[in-house]
Parts: sequence; C-alpha cells; structure tokens
Amino acid sequence: MQSSPALPSAERLARQIAFIVEVDRLKDVFRQTVLTQTRRAENDAEHSWHLCLCALVLAEYANKPGLDILRVLKMAIIHDLVEIDAGDTFAYDATGMATQSERENRAADRIFGLLPPDQADEFRTLWNEFEARETPEAKFAAAIDRLQPVILNIHTQGHAWQKHGVTSDRVIARNQHIAQGSQTLWEYLSKSIEHAVQTGHLKK
Amino acid sequence: MQSSPALPSAERLARQIAFIVEVDRLKDVFRQTVLTQTRRAENDAEHSWHLCLCALVLAEYANKPGLDILRVLKMAIIHDLVEIDAGDTFAYDATGMATQSERENRAADRIFGLLPPDQADEFRTLWNEFEARETPEAKFAAAIDRLQPVILNIHTQGHAWQKHGVTSDRVIARNQHIAQGSQTLWEYLSKSIEHAVQTGHLKK
Repeated sequence: MQSSPALPSAERLARQIAFIVEVDRLKDVFRQTVLTQTRRAENDAEHSWHLCLCALVLAEYANKPGLDILRVLKMAIIHDLVEIDAGDTFAYDATGMATQSERENRAADRIFGLLPPDQADEFRTLWNEFEARETPEAKFAAAIDRLQPVILNIHTQGHAWQKHGVTSDRVIARNQHIAQGSQTLWEYLSKSIEHAVQTGHLKK
Repeated sequence: MQSSPALPSAERLARQIAFIVEVDRLKDVFRQTVLTQTRRAENDAEHSWHLCLCALVLAEYANKPGLDILRVLKMAIIHDLVEIDAGDTFAYDATGMATQSERENRAADRIFGLLPPDQADEFRTLWNEFEARETPEAKFAAAIDRLQPVILNIHTQGHAWQKHGVTSDRVIARNQHIAQGSQTLWEYLSKSIEHAVQTGHLKK
C-alpha cells in the first residue's frame, strides 16, 4: 500500500486511527443469535471474528478450489461495519429487509469515508463485492456468514428460531444460497436443520 | 488444503464444527480494556476482530515492506484462543505473567487438538510464531496486539490504567516492543502516551 498523495502523512495516520476508534462501536450492535454458554446476544464484532475463524477452518469446502482466502477474510472483517449506523436487520424481518439496502449504503458512505481516500475505496469495493455475491470469494464469505448463526442456533436449542417463531421452510429459503459458496457445507447444514426439526428445536 | 488421510470426511467436518462451537467461548473471556461507548469490558473475540481491522488499515506502517498480511491476520484471529482455558492475563499483573506460558501451552494442546491433525499443526505453528515474535509478521501482529488496547485506553480517559494505578514508565516498558513491528506506530503512540500524562489520564 502506498500513502495517498492527497494527504500529509500525519493527517493520513490521524484519519486511520479515527476510523479504528469509530468502528469500536460494532461491539455495541447486537444480533438475534445468542452465545452457546451464557445465552446473551452476540454482537457484530464477535460475529465477524467468528466468521474469520470459520473461513480459515472451512476453506477447503469452498466450491471453487484455490480461493483467495485473504479476500474472504477482508470481507468478513468489514462486512458488518455498515450496521454501526444501519443496525442489525434480523434475517427473518421482512419490513427491515425492505429498507436495509438504502440504510446500509448511506452507512457505507459515512463509515468508509472516514478513511484516507485510497483505503475508503478499497473497503467500499470489498463491501460491494460481498453484497453482490458474484465472485467465488464473495459467495464463500456469504455462505459462512449464514452458516455461523445457524450453527449457533443449533447449539442453543434453536434459541433465536424459537423466540421469533421461525419455521424450517423459512430457514431453508433464507440459507440455501450457502450452496453457491459450498455445496458440502449446505448438505451438512440441511441435515442439521432436519435434525433440529426432529428434536423440536425448529418448527416444521 | 487437503483432507487428512487419517480421518474419514464426515469425522473431519464434525471435528471442525466442534472446534468452531468450542471457540464461541472466547466471547466470554473478558479483558481489562473497556469499550469507548459503554465502558463495559471488552472480550477476546471483539479484541481479535479489532486487531484484524487494525492490521488491514495500518499494514503500510510495518517496518518490513511487503509483509504477508494473510499470515498476520491468521495470527490475529487465533492468538487469544488459549485464553479460553488460561484466562486473560492483565499486561501489568506480574504474578499472573509468571505462570502464563505454562497455562497457555496446556491450553494450546487441548484447543488446537480439537481440530483434524493437519489443521491442529497449522494453528499451533502460527500461535508459536506469534508467541516467539521473531518473524516480521509476528512482530507486526504483536505490535498491533499492544497498540489496540493502548488506543482504547487513550479514548476512555485511561480507564484501565487508572483502575490499576499503572504509571507511564510501565506503559512504555510494556509497549515499546511495538517499535520492532512498526517504528512509525511506536512514535505515534509514544506521543499519545505523553499526551495522556499531560491530560492526567495516566500517572507519571
């Protein structure tokens, strides 16, 4: 990476540190998923870290061999930053989902815009790639982004599903795009979802 | 990555998922540092995510140009997993520091050992590299690991420093190895620490 010619070096570093301080707020954005031990709500920063770890451990199952895992990790690290302004939209909240894109685009402008221009561009491009879900890397990152909360739901007796009365057909409809990133992981999860129905942790 | 020949594929995936579920506990390991907004204690999962983000944003300041940023990120993602068993050792707790290494090595055996053998080896090697702080990547990852809590302390009026009566000479002694990873970032932080003394957020 090279310094932006537009900014003196002290200002460049000051903007980078200001961005790092601002994104501390991601730790205050809570999700519907709960943790396996304490059953408290998970926040977006923890979720993003867990995605990175899932991506490292499960990379071998990506449909495309030889995935650029660095780009997958970069997307995992920044994919939820927009929720600092836009909030978390629960996967099964149709009303929230309708306005999600507009709210998140505005948030991306402000938050990535805190960085020096070259890095703002780099992060915005990565976030757009993640959202568009067209490249193999974005498809795999998006697959992991859906897989991680399903695994937490399964290991908390379907906590978030039960709380919101979500049924198995909606879980399948919402998560089946996992197969675009990893056929193997979607097969594994389908069986786990079936099992959750059998054990009564997820309504049919 | 290739499948380990020693494990059938279903067992391999089962072990990987079991590891992913186990490390959810990192979200329950709390640190002395507090968040900028709510002033609640930060946990290790949030801290690890924040390190990844700092590494991405600040990579250009590494002493060594052309750093392998993927390896830096991998170290950031896994560096605190041992604290699931060993707990967080506060940087200024001399008694805890004395037994830290033994406790953490035992934890590494158990936690990385949950993975299939090839991945257990890979993660253990990465963790050893991080701990040894000899390669440019490990030096930079370790620099960021010290920088992030100092930044949070500075942006919470020295919260953890005040609580534990830490003085500026101890902060400097503990953090000066940041210069081994990034001279530029250590110069920046030294000035910030000096400023914290001037504003009364850190005792001389």
